[in-house]
Amino acid sequence: MSAIEKKAKIAVLGASGYTGAELVRLLLRHPRVEIALLTADRRAGKAMAEVFPQFAPYALPVLSAVEDADWAKLHLDLAFCALPHGTTQRVVADLVERAPATKVVDLSADFRLSDPAAYARWYGHEHWAPELQKEAVYGLTEIYRSQIKAARLVANPGCYTTCAELALIPLLKAKAVDPDEIVVDAKSGMTGAGRAAREEMLFAEVSEGFHAYGVGHHRHMSELDQEFSRAAGREVIVSFTPHLVPMNRGILSTIYVRGLKGASPQDLHALLLKAYAKEPFVHVLSFQALPQTRHVRGSNMTFIGVAADRIAGRAIIGSALDNLTKGASGQAVQNMNVMLGFPETMGLEQVALFP
Amino acid sequence: MSAIEKKAKIAVLGASGYTGAELVRLLLRHPRVEIALLTADRRAGKAMAEVFPQFAPYALPVLSAVEDADWAKLHLDLAFCALPHGTTQRVVADLVERAPATKVVDLSADFRLSDPAAYARWYGHEHWAPELQKEAVYGLTEIYRSQIKAARLVANPGCYTTCAELALIPLLKAKAVDPDEIVVDAKSGMTGAGRAAREEMLFAEVSEGFHAYGVGHHRHMSELDQEFSRAAGREVIVSFTPHLVPMNRGILSTIYVRGLKGASPQDLHALLLKAYAKEPFVHVLSFQALPQTRHVRGSNMTFIGVAADRIAGRAIIGSALDNLTKGASGQAVQNMNVMLGFPETMGLEQVALFP
Amino acid sequence: MSAIEKKAKIAVLGASGYTGAELVRLLLRHPRVEIALLTADRRAGKAMAEVFPQFAPYALPVLSAVEDADWAKLHLDLAFCALPHGTTQRVVADLVERAPATKVVDLSADFRLSDPAAYARWYGHEHWAPELQKEAVYGLTEIYRSQIKAARLVANPGCYTTCAELALIPLLKAKAVDPDEIVVDAKSGMTGAGRAAREEMLFAEVSEGFHAYGVGHHRHMSELDQEFSRAAGREVIVSFTPHLVPMNRGILSTIYVRGLKGASPQDLHALLLKAYAKEPFVHVLSFQALPQTRHVRGSNMTFIGVAADRIAGRAIIGSALDNLTKGASGQAVQNMNVMLGFPETMGLEQVALFP
Amino acid sequence: MSAIEKKAKIAVLGASGYTGAELVRLLLRHPRVEIALLTADRRAGKAMAEVFPQFAPYALPVLSAVEDADWAKLHLDLAFCALPHGTTQRVVADLVERAPATKVVDLSADFRLSDPAAYARWYGHEHWAPELQKEAVYGLTEIYRSQIKAARLVANPGCYTTCAELALIPLLKAKAVDPDEIVVDAKSGMTGAGRAAREEMLFAEVSEGFHAYGVGHHRHMSELDQEFSRAAGREVIVSFTPHLVPMNRGILSTIYVRGLKGASPQDLHALLLKAYAKEPFVHVLSFQALPQTRHVRGSNMTFIGVAADRIAGRAIIGSALDNLTKGASGQAVQNMNVMLGFPETMGLEQVALFP
Repeated sequence: MSAIEKKAKIAVLGASGYTGAELVRLLLRHPRVEIALLTADRRAGKAMAEVFPQFAPYALPVLSAVEDADWAKLHLDLAFCALPHGTTQRVVADLVERAPATKVVDLSADFRLSDPAAYARWYGHEHWAPELQKEAVYGLTEIYRSQIKAARLVANPGCYTTCAELALIPLLKAKAVDPDEIVVDAKSGMTGAGRAAREEMLFAEVSEGFHAYGVGHHRHMSELDQEFSRAAGREVIVSFTPHLVPMNRGILSTIYVRGLKGASPQDLHALLLKAYAKEPFVHVLSFQALPQTRHVRGSNMTFIGVAADRIAGRAIIGSALDNLTKGASGQAVQNMNVMLGFPETMGLEQVALFP
Repeated sequence: MSAIEKKAKIAVLGASGYTGAELVRLLLRHPRVEIALLTADRRAGKAMAEVFPQFAPYALPVLSAVEDADWAKLHLDLAFCALPHGTTQRVVADLVERAPATKVVDLSADFRLSDPAAYARWYGHEHWAPELQKEAVYGLTEIYRSQIKAARLVANPGCYTTCAELALIPLLKAKAVDPDEIVVDAKSGMTGAGRAAREEMLFAEVSEGFHAYGVGHHRHMSELDQEFSRAAGREVIVSFTPHLVPMNRGILSTIYVRGLKGASPQDLHALLLKAYAKEPFVHVLSFQALPQTRHVRGSNMTFIGVAADRIAGRAIIGSALDNLTKGASGQAVQNMNVMLGFPETMGLEQVALFP
Repeated sequence: MSAIEKKAKIAVLGASGYTGAELVRLLLRHPRVEIALLTADRRAGKAMAEVFPQFAPYALPVLSAVEDADWAKLHLDLAFCALPHGTTQRVVADLVERAPATKVVDLSADFRLSDPAAYARWYGHEHWAPELQKEAVYGLTEIYRSQIKAARLVANPGCYTTCAELALIPLLKAKAVDPDEIVVDAKSGMTGAGRAAREEMLFAEVSEGFHAYGVGHHRHMSELDQEFSRAAGREVIVSFTPHLVPMNRGILSTIYVRGLKGASPQDLHALLLKAYAKEPFVHVLSFQALPQTRHVRGSNMTFIGVAADRIAGRAIIGSALDNLTKGASGQAVQNMNVMLGFPETMGLEQVALFP
Repeated sequence: MSAIEKKAKIAVLGASGYTGAELVRLLLRHPRVEIALLTADRRAGKAMAEVFPQFAPYALPVLSAVEDADWAKLHLDLAFCALPHGTTQRVVADLVERAPATKVVDLSADFRLSDPAAYARWYGHEHWAPELQKEAVYGLTEIYRSQIKAARLVANPGCYTTCAELALIPLLKAKAVDPDEIVVDAKSGMTGAGRAAREEMLFAEVSEGFHAYGVGHHRHMSELDQEFSRAAGREVIVSFTPHLVPMNRGILSTIYVRGLKGASPQDLHALLLKAYAKEPFVHVLSFQALPQTRHVRGSNMTFIGVAADRIAGRAIIGSALDNLTKGASGQAVQNMNVMLGFPETMGLEQVALFP
């Protein structure tokens, strides 16, 4: 192995949650990285296999407390931060101060909003690391690739937002859909809710049923507003309703749009096809076909389809991804690849697991 | 038992499908009926318990072929017809000719459209029993109760359509929502697809995933068009996309509307609350709460909720029912009760099975 | 309504758990009872519909704290006690002291073991209400019906134990199977684990997978030991391994036995058929057929089947019930019916919900 | 790429079934193979992505009919045969006659039994390719590695049998468990039933329930008999009951054994630990821990655990694998690696997908 192929030293902060486990799953097979640190405060001292038994056959660092990390001595190339809201800002600020050469991909929502006022409005307080908030690059790789390449801190997008943004941003940029009449009806698997033990996430509560939640006030809306408005060059507010599906992984967004200035559903399809022609992780289906979440499960792919509505001028767009992979940890690894100069698809080539 | 309490003689034609089994489940506990005939052509000669083992403890007629039924001699009070498209028209025409006193509740789509032209457009051929098509009453009980009372032939509505119509008809009648901007995003459990052995309905194909189907061309649209246009007094065409949820029972429709002439979400809620105040099988949740399918499972209830969208003037309506009960066999029994003069809730009082 | 039909006043202590909700589901449709009290300490002051939204259409008492119950003034005919281990003994002791005329069906494990030494061995402490422990009758209705009729306190059996005991007790009594070579491989739906928020019961932890738990040391074993030994007239200890199935309801026990003194599998089948010929809630399938949990879902039925193993002299017995109904609340209502002199099947006639 | 790294030309016969799709998933990421031929008779002419949409982003041969394959011209290095029973024998015989240099891994049951009499007894007819039957090597890689290395035709074991055999063969070889008292209670996900459209495999039939099937007469028994008898050096017949779990992937076998000559559960654990110490795809858990299917999902791992039963001298062994990976296509690729001289783990390193 040549010098340039020396393995990058990587940390996963918050390794006992689902996005943490997904990062470890992907990084274990990434040929250019070495997992140097795994933190999980409540489980510090335990083996990763005690928390996620699927890792029993692999050699991994023992879980430690994030407080015990000596960032300067660790010489990390990059840290993935999968910590809860609030904690994140403090930990990232501390890390970049003590180890300025360490890059960070943050999987929380803490650095996704670039407007301090918007942040304060949605989160109820001023940002605790406003300089970093300003510096952070929004990590929707296909849209912000060049900025990510140069970034020290990348704010990995939310799962719902990645799913809807990949479908809509090219159309809004092209002014091909009416920004005032967009409905995003989103459906997510249960891992999107995280691993915290809450009654409403018990198997017996959520299997054999379906429901909407967070109606009218879901924090992912603020991200959608920011990115859709940037893409359209004007304020865009969409109707967005998330639902929970009794499955582990996957998000499907069904998006209802009206074409602008005579843009037909076929035109919208052509725009998306062109936008993603060279993208390894976005696949646009043939016209009229809509995607299924199961066909991207465990992969870093997003499948997007466009169909004509029976109402003239309207189209129905489907966008599907795995919320833990392209919707979280897969995109985080994709961003790491861009930030560290690795081939963008490295470690992310696994084919979807279906059935 | 007094004369007036003599049990009504009932047939279930097509007893080997899911709606047939659901009819038998409900009728077995209905105090005023006797199951006199069960047909299932491919299973003729078998016990019902061979086809649905849950009925093993109960005495039921052996399955027979519908061709072998001597309608005149059977003296049925009412027949539920749960046969496939096409077969239905021939069987019902034959039955009402030979046994004019026997009433019929048809669970297929064959008699739901009253306009011959609409029927021909959606089904690709002229109706084969046009006189009966004219006679049939649309069996959305809460809306057409008085006509159902007098009907000989009731066309039981579809599951998707019952769910969306109960939520929207009162609002369209009141001209409270914009008929040109309605999106119905519907999600159904797998029993809605019936019991026919098709690859795409295998467990391994549909579990752990989610997808839309029939985009832009689902036959239930024709029913929605008919009923929404009747309610609004003008042509109404809605965006409607059905999806499949990995669960057995339940439909949730998430409906996006814009209030007309200043109707706020609260106004819409109040309208629904008033419309269903005395209805035993429609329950309107408190404002801002949206329903879950699991809370109506196995019951004949429809739960409807209204929440404000964050976009001023727009509301999100949720409507949930069990597709086999209120969406099919439960409503069929409800219609039977109305047609035979029984209390409307008789045999339908079971509480939802959750968890 | 005649005097004899005056409704019995009933309490459900611990109404916010799954067995509590199942009791309410059944009692709401029982023609001879009135739900007079619902307790749920952590939810005291809330409506039952806030805790279980399926009850929104029904009139029910507000949830209260068990400490606030004035047993003497309530004049309850019977209280169902669905409280956690420990709490139970104190509450029941207090209740029967203050309201000696109130009967109790306890759904916890606290009064199931009649031997004080066995209790102390399995639970790690002396029983806190030893007189009541002595008095309590084990509530396996089909086996102890006459004692239950006269009982003030009935200890409702566990779900796993009801399932295995109904299948094996008649065979052990008849000395038809070798007591030293019985394997009970049991599989349960998730509601058996209760409603407490624990990480290992989250949807994402338990769906799409299968595992054994409590291997070698599950408390239900003590009940099996007691009842099997009573039935056999000698000490019987069986191999018992419980597993969790990603479904809400249902237990299937697959039981491996060797016939004694030439008892063939057909002989075992004949014994069970005879034992349960007149039982409304136990159905023995035809020889060689084994039961499925889905065919008893939501009903109070137990389905039992016997098949010949290919090893001469050995048989495989399947026993299936709904853990919340016959395995808990259904049997509790069945016991109530026996204790209060109602027809044993009253309120329990609902047919299984399949699909 | 050096000469030795020229990619091997591989065919998948029967690519439209689940084991076919799993082979393609694995082979697409195998660095040393090229998928040269995909057959699927009923789907001939279609793109693989029409049959399995997850493959849409990848370049793959169009599906063809197996009859149209010109084996001599194809110069295949190896063909995976995932065809139905019967067809298999004819196709493999034809293939090896026309292309003697092409190796074959057959995933059907057709070549698993080496005894012609046993074959005829279980399948009701003489083998149609008796010379090949004699030549075929049983492909349980960990046990028959050296024979597989030299084989032209490998009979890949069944999923249930791989799971039970890996757990029991080392113990039977060591004469550590009583061969006359083994119970194998096996539970499988639904993909084990294949992709054929059958009513009993519909989602609505198999979700929310659990049942045994094939009791007393499952064809996998013949394989167990052969391998257990070989291992023990005497005839061994075990009790074996398969069950269906409402999940896609995974088999868990719960195995009840009695130690021989004083072998304790700890001794059994030690034997297995030693037997698999160097095996990359068999992981023995720590004593008393039993495995879960979800922790091997999508991986080629088998997890085995041993726990003491509370009955002295008896142990409970759990063995878990993914029926499509180590239970079928993963082991087939593992065998291909051995047969073609590749590193045994090549293309099989993916970590289990949990949650």
